[in-house]
Amino acid sequence: MIVRFKRKVNFYETDAQGIVHHSNYPRYFEEARGYYLENLGFPYSDIRNKLNTDIVILEININYRHPLVYGDSFEIITELDIENRYFFNFRYTVKKKNETISTGKTRHCCISRSNKKMIPIPDELRNKLD
Amino acid sequence: MIVRFKRKVNFYETDAQGIVHHSNYPRYFEEARGYYLENLGFPYSDIRNKLNTDIVILEININYRHPLVYGDSFEIITELDIENRYFFNFRYTVKKKNETISTGKTRHCCISRSNKKMIPIPDELRNKLD
Amino acid sequence: MIVRFKRKVNFYETDAQGIVHHSNYPRYFEEARGYYLENLGFPYSDIRNKLNTDIVILEININYRHPLVYGDSFEIITELDIENRYFFNFRYTVKKKNETISTGKTRHCCISRSNKKMIPIPDELRNKLD
Amino acid sequence: MIVRFKRKVNFYETDAQGIVHHSNYPRYFEEARGYYLENLGFPYSDIRNKLNTDIVILEININYRHPLVYGDSFEIITELDIENRYFFNFRYTVKKKNETISTGKTRHCCISRSNKKMIPIPDELRNKLD
Repeated sequence: MIVRFKRKVNFYETDAQGIVHHSNYPRYFEEARGYYLENLGFPYSDIRNKLNTDIVILEININYRHPLVYGDSFEIITELDIENRYFFNFRYTVKKKNETISTGKTRHCCISRSNKKMIPIPDELRNKLD
Repeated sequence: MIVRFKRKVNFYETDAQGIVHHSNYPRYFEEARGYYLENLGFPYSDIRNKLNTDIVILEININYRHPLVYGDSFEIITELDIENRYFFNFRYTVKKKNETISTGKTRHCCISRSNKKMIPIPDELRNKLD
Repeated sequence: MIVRFKRKVNFYETDAQGIVHHSNYPRYFEEARGYYLENLGFPYSDIRNKLNTDIVILEININYRHPLVYGDSFEIITELDIENRYFFNFRYTVKKKNETISTGKTRHCCISRSNKKMIPIPDELRNKLD
Repeated sequence: MIVRFKRKVNFYETDAQGIVHHSNYPRYFEEARGYYLENLGFPYSDIRNKLNTDIVILEININYRHPLVYGDSFEIITELDIENRYFFNFRYTVKKKNETISTGKTRHCCISRSNKKMIPIPDELRNKLD
């Protein structure tokens, strides 16, 4: 499944270089990830509250090709791949019209909210992801 | 007690107007408040963990007189006044050398972390604050 | 004119109290303000680029009544009043269904982007605002 | 040169998982980078204003091993390596006492602030970096 998430730049996301500060991309990716899970029928708030599970981030990699500025509209194209029963990755492409602004990847696992220990991806979620 | 907290502007706090974005002042005030409580001998992490108490914010008022820019060093002068056994206020003056950049006030009460209900200011903290 | 802006809480806007950190409300208000100007037919990026004008913030006041948590959807109802040819105020009510979460006010003026001096509200904008 | 930058977690940097939100690490790295340049005798504000040069970020990679929580003090150990006359990398290790919390790398180049075009690392800066 590929999910497309549309967004506009907020003024508070810009910096004194006049562009979106690079630390906002992990936040944009998180929004895109949330939107992906929502489209899957499993919003992250349900994963947290119904499965007592937190998704944690293990790695992030971002390539910045072109800047975004205030007033820009963009789209984040998100894909998911399951590495094994514990680990999974999201891949992101940030597009402004046909221009690739940025690409990124995040690697994740699940933990129990009770004891903070790593757990396999819960079946309810796994079935949706597959 | 008056507490002076020194700080420098971080680049990620600036915006496309070339100045510190106004939404950082509530964060600067929170840092100054944390420093105040630390100077009182009662760090906020102890209030949370040992007294099982959260301090919540009820109101914030900020006057912006002059901007801060990247490279600026500034100072936040913080004072506390206790309104009654439930409510208390912090007052802040942001200074760059002798220039007043901004003034602000926040109003607070305490809640139990267990049930999120308002509680009187805990005695251990009250004794320090007085 | 009253403008209603819909939004969801992002996970990165929450804090260790489990609620939306109070410093996000100035950002939510800025988004609502941007949406207001857009609805007026005068997006802030046009004000900046076509009128060479920045809107600056002089004051902010926020009352926090109830917290927002991750998963919440909310609405910001925004109104504008013109104080005189220089100053104007936005008023905000944050609603979750019928519950008032927070209210706020911001006071503004315009400056020239070239010399950073205060200017009267530009006629092009003034005509729209009236 | 290796530079050690000390920092405490701010409450506003935490999230509803009770830990520092991962999007703050690019900001911590930026602070560490700024401190590195300052220690080099070439603060970033001077690079911007005296050399009319911006440092832009091309890539970021972060490994998250252990979380930071409110109340934690940590240290960022920063090293620089020059790739060639255009590109350079900073490497960061975030330590809480002897525990490695996180490691990261950022890749950069310089642009002219006037025309936003890539330029070789300015000699004044290059001499310091070598």
